[in-house]
Amino acid sequence: MAHLTVSVEYGIHCLLWLAGPDRAPVSSRDLAELQGISTSFVAKIFPKLEKAGIVRSSEGVHGGYVLAKTPAQISVLEIVDAIEGRKPLFDCREIRGRCALFGDPPPSWATAGVCAVHAVMLRAEKAMRDALAAQSLGDIASTVERKAPPDFAGQVGGWLDVRDAARTRRTEPTPRDA
Amino acid sequence: MAHLTVSVEYGIHCLLWLAGPDRAPVSSRDLAELQGISTSFVAKIFPKLEKAGIVRSSEGVHGGYVLAKTPAQISVLEIVDAIEGRKPLFDCREIRGRCALFGDPPPSWATAGVCAVHAVMLRAEKAMRDALAAQSLGDIASTVERKAPPDFAGQVGGWLDVRDAARTRRTEPTPRDA
Repeated sequence: MAHLTVSVEYGIHCLLWLAGPDRAPVSSRDLAELQGISTSFVAKIFPKLEKAGIVRSSEGVHGGYVLAKTPAQISVLEIVDAIEGRKPLFDCREIRGRCALFGDPPPSWATAGVCAVHAVMLRAEKAMRDALAAQSLGDIASTVERKAPPDFAGQVGGWLDVRDAARTRRTEPTPRDA
Repeated sequence: MAHLTVSVEYGIHCLLWLAGPDRAPVSSRDLAELQGISTSFVAKIFPKLEKAGIVRSSEGVHGGYVLAKTPAQISVLEIVDAIEGRKPLFDCREIRGRCALFGDPPPSWATAGVCAVHAVMLRAEKAMRDALAAQSLGDIASTVERKAPPDFAGQVGGWLDVRDAARTRRTEPTPRDA
């Protein structure tokens, strides 16, 4: 099992679709169906992103999510922490104090400061978090944009517009309602 | 839940007790009881450390484990990989190829090279692994040694000798066996 769950992968990929300029609000359902991934899964991710101030939501038939900041202002670390919570690399159980040679409480020299094993893990965790903090959603979006053909963003916008229009039609009163 | 399991914590702490100079073979049971941790848990860790060439085992009543290399030659990364296997930070499911606008197969530009999200995660994983590779069991042992009083290593040796002697007595023929 990987350290980061599939929610992080889905979350970042969804945010990439919102990173285009002047993107109208997009529902989590449309984002999921655009990518062929679980709608219920994606629906659970967005409230976490909203709580962390990464996206803003709007209600109503044309409602959905937009980025709350520019893509360059959103670090990958921020997205990971918003979705996963602050998950440690290593959970120190302080077993250094349990030695059979010690009394209760163990001698202070044995439990002073951070456990030496834990200290190594904290350094490794910091290196990982620093690497995630150094990359923004904007960096990833630029890489993706360089790969895609020039008209791809327009095609995606068109697909989303068609979905939005279909939703509008469904909510308009039909002759039978009138 | 932390990324690294309690097995890594137990494994490194056990290896620290084997890092002293001229340590006689120690059984996994004695290592567990010395530290007040589960004997069955520790017994499952050592075959993995042996398979990875970190410890060597010997059979018999005085048998047990010794380090197969010097503590300075054993990196923390090596211990982590031996115990956990090579666990990725992120498991890329290549969702970039599933876009509703694509046919089957998706266009080659969409799936060429490493996914940009995955690339960020691979960089973060490398930073973490480099940090773990930069630290050795010897580094941790030196930190612990600096904290402990000068006679502590001798006390531990004495505790292990008493256990070893008790085992010898239990296996000697008693008058009733004769």
